[in-house]
Amino acid sequence: MQLSARELAAILNGSIEGDPDVKVNRPSKIEEGGEGSISFLGNPKYEDYVYQSTSSVLLVHRSFEPRQAVNATLIKVDDVYASVAILLEQFGKSTTRNTGISSQAFIHPSAVLAEEVTIEPFAVVEANAHIGKGSYIGPQVYIGQDVQVGNNTIIYAGVRIMQKTEIGDNCIIHPNVVIGSDGFGFAPNAEGIYQKIQHVGNVIIEDNVEIGANTTVDRATMGSTIIRQGAKLDNLIQVGHNVEIGENTVIAALVGIAGSTKIGKSCRIGGQVGFAGHLSVADGTQIGGQTGVMSTIKTPNANWVGTPAIPYKDYFRSFALFRQLPEIYQRLNELEALLRQQSNSTDTSSPTPPNN
Amino acid sequence: MQLSARELAAILNGSIEGDPDVKVNRPSKIEEGGEGSISFLGNPKYEDYVYQSTSSVLLVHRSFEPRQAVNATLIKVDDVYASVAILLEQFGKSTTRNTGISSQAFIHPSAVLAEEVTIEPFAVVEANAHIGKGSYIGPQVYIGQDVQVGNNTIIYAGVRIMQKTEIGDNCIIHPNVVIGSDGFGFAPNAEGIYQKIQHVGNVIIEDNVEIGANTTVDRATMGSTIIRQGAKLDNLIQVGHNVEIGENTVIAALVGIAGSTKIGKSCRIGGQVGFAGHLSVADGTQIGGQTGVMSTIKTPNANWVGTPAIPYKDYFRSFALFRQLPEIYQRLNELEALLRQQSNSTDTSSPTPPNN
Amino acid sequence: MQLSARELAAILNGSIEGDPDVKVNRPSKIEEGGEGSISFLGNPKYEDYVYQSTSSVLLVHRSFEPRQAVNATLIKVDDVYASVAILLEQFGKSTTRNTGISSQAFIHPSAVLAEEVTIEPFAVVEANAHIGKGSYIGPQVYIGQDVQVGNNTIIYAGVRIMQKTEIGDNCIIHPNVVIGSDGFGFAPNAEGIYQKIQHVGNVIIEDNVEIGANTTVDRATMGSTIIRQGAKLDNLIQVGHNVEIGENTVIAALVGIAGSTKIGKSCRIGGQVGFAGHLSVADGTQIGGQTGVMSTIKTPNANWVGTPAIPYKDYFRSFALFRQLPEIYQRLNELEALLRQQSNSTDTSSPTPPNN
Repeated sequence: MQLSARELAAILNGSIEGDPDVKVNRPSKIEEGGEGSISFLGNPKYEDYVYQSTSSVLLVHRSFEPRQAVNATLIKVDDVYASVAILLEQFGKSTTRNTGISSQAFIHPSAVLAEEVTIEPFAVVEANAHIGKGSYIGPQVYIGQDVQVGNNTIIYAGVRIMQKTEIGDNCIIHPNVVIGSDGFGFAPNAEGIYQKIQHVGNVIIEDNVEIGANTTVDRATMGSTIIRQGAKLDNLIQVGHNVEIGENTVIAALVGIAGSTKIGKSCRIGGQVGFAGHLSVADGTQIGGQTGVMSTIKTPNANWVGTPAIPYKDYFRSFALFRQLPEIYQRLNELEALLRQQSNSTDTSSPTPPNN
Repeated sequence: MQLSARELAAILNGSIEGDPDVKVNRPSKIEEGGEGSISFLGNPKYEDYVYQSTSSVLLVHRSFEPRQAVNATLIKVDDVYASVAILLEQFGKSTTRNTGISSQAFIHPSAVLAEEVTIEPFAVVEANAHIGKGSYIGPQVYIGQDVQVGNNTIIYAGVRIMQKTEIGDNCIIHPNVVIGSDGFGFAPNAEGIYQKIQHVGNVIIEDNVEIGANTTVDRATMGSTIIRQGAKLDNLIQVGHNVEIGENTVIAALVGIAGSTKIGKSCRIGGQVGFAGHLSVADGTQIGGQTGVMSTIKTPNANWVGTPAIPYKDYFRSFALFRQLPEIYQRLNELEALLRQQSNSTDTSSPTPPNN
Repeated sequence: MQLSARELAAILNGSIEGDPDVKVNRPSKIEEGGEGSISFLGNPKYEDYVYQSTSSVLLVHRSFEPRQAVNATLIKVDDVYASVAILLEQFGKSTTRNTGISSQAFIHPSAVLAEEVTIEPFAVVEANAHIGKGSYIGPQVYIGQDVQVGNNTIIYAGVRIMQKTEIGDNCIIHPNVVIGSDGFGFAPNAEGIYQKIQHVGNVIIEDNVEIGANTTVDRATMGSTIIRQGAKLDNLIQVGHNVEIGENTVIAALVGIAGSTKIGKSCRIGGQVGFAGHLSVADGTQIGGQTGVMSTIKTPNANWVGTPAIPYKDYFRSFALFRQLPEIYQRLNELEALLRQQSNSTDTSSPTPPNN
């Protein structure tokens, strides 16, 4: 896709300084640039890049006045970041997806496909599955029995959706995600041999949820594992059986959530965080990377870190002193020695100082 | 599947109070309930739910006597939890799996399939692979050359079993697991460029092992990576080359086990635990979530946590004081100040207190 | 594959003591051994194994003189470890891969396949993809639009390569890896609902890179996520959008690297390490397992551990005192008590000691 500066200025409601006919075919960072690229100056402290940039077009704020000569054509806009989002949207459209039902897919006769559904080669759609209007089932995807997929949902290559899972509208499920596999539940018998507990529940994914590559979501023992609308999960996350993730909560990669834990709305969870099972986490909670949450969090909108999790500020204050422990220890030793000495010189009958 | 209270009471050897003809089609938690569901009261402290529940049938202990009116039909049993397991088993049966050999699979002419094997569409079974009686090879599964799969083993969609892997009877391998990929072994040359070390060993999975979705098990450099019978692995676990995992050991999600480490029998490993390579871990060891095991554990049945791992109680005792470090530091400062002052007032010739 | 001791000695330029006609079909560890296996004595401290070993052939150093009778045929070589690497190479060759283009694959008419390319069943190669000479596309692999794969690269079963990814020569991509899925980028609107940011960049994998099973590499928002030549990534790693990984850097399993972080050359990253976004990490950095890197590392060749990361030695010195915190606390309490007592006995007008 190629767009001229003139066309872009029209889309972004911007004004042009420079050649309106120069064409661009991709966005790039201002420090990378290159002919045919469009870059942006979001933060005035990077202004120097404007004069070095090899990009063909630069998006700048309406108020920007260059102090030196600029090679690129400038497009001045009211909100640089909003304009970048629109730009990315434009260039993102240029990837076309296949449409239609591949003759090389396996589709069970009892499966129901709505209008404008795409099914790619080597996908399997099992008995009684329903795929909603405009949804995309990528190559080599597995859709199990009785699965429901809503409208305009994208399920990329290699995803496995196990039986009875329900997925809403406008979701995006990235490659090799597994949804609805058995939860991790076993009961040891008298000999310590683990007997499998059947998982007869399912997984419910509400609307506008995005799930990153190779993430796994287990189905409930009974009832449902639920991911509420607007939640966004990154790659390689483990969501245990009967977990519930609240609306508009975002979770970074490699997080593990043990069975039956409920995470509130609008939480922000850092990478590699672990949650023990059967907890609840208040709305608006923020959790730093690698934190181990071992008990319920009741206060909303608080910020936690550490294993076990403690308030963010407390952790960093204590960690600063953890680093000083050798010095603290040394000072304690010196104090004891001093006190022992003093004690001897002032009052020989005083109690013995503690042993080192 | 629908069952009446009468039928369920017969299966569970229970006695009925209420309508024996009411029908249920699913188990549910007592607080969720709903018409057509069967719930249970496992712990007497939740008795209040019995009176609020909308479930059609409730499983309760033989000795339970309601103090208020109950809407649901009660089934009284000797062991509520054992009855729930039987119930889940009953309802779990209602999912039927396909049977037979799909004409859309690729099966090498030299592969050997025993009786009652199922091969789903787009599976690949390579040369000299053997699949045992009653085993299920899911859609889009890859079974490499010379792989052996035992009897009644379930291999779900998208699993990759690389060459020479041996899997026992009654195993369950969840979607997108990878077994038998190359171990992570490289030798740097004089220029610091890593040369690949060939991995000519294999992976052996004994009987009754369950492996969770997207877990990876690398094959041995030489010899075998071994998972002993009855071990249960959750999702997204990394098992390195030449690792051995003992009988009836359970491992939670996102654990990483580096090469050549041997984990004993009946261990319980929490989520996101990491093991360095070439260690051994005693039988019955319990390890808390996110622990980093950096040396061999010789004492059986002990409980560890922290990075590096230390005894569980020691960690939490020290962590409580870690949280108090700001106060401890303050008290140390005050002691020093006091001592300096005292020292000045009692003996001006005493040694200088340590600098702050 | 079977080789006689005579043939092996010729390959390894070694001299034989014992039966030159004994045949071996596999390498094994000296303590495992078994008829038909070849083992090695790399470290003289394991010499006792030589006399117990049931291996048919043992590789030993040219200078080795047995002190007791040895059952195995010995092959004496100048460099035992180098000989083992050659041996593994020999035995590794014995696994033959399929060749040719499967009629059960989907290959878009506009895709370009160079000579000697293998495409296995149920693979999908999309429009305008280019596959270089001698490369192997495994079963059930997905190669997206405009993807470039170099020469002699191996892409194992179930890998997903999304659109516009570029992969170099001699790479190995293990099963179920995902390369080029959307980065994790969202902008919250005024109501706290996350809007997706389109990712229009790609992923570039240079030559001689190896990527372990189930690892995920996200594509760039704009520009490229880059893995430089010779880098080796283990299983289950998350590489965020716009990350750059330097030449000959090795990364162990379950590491997470957040968006836009740049890791230098020849770094060694332990398992389960996490990197915050927008950092840079100096060349030659070594990071211990489970470390949380929260700020830029400027000093090359240093060694870090902890969350947040601090110098390796500092961490372990402080951690040793963390373990002693109960004793330190006790001593502080005793000092205070002593001082309070002393203060009373020597000078009743002295200031009150701090409260406990």
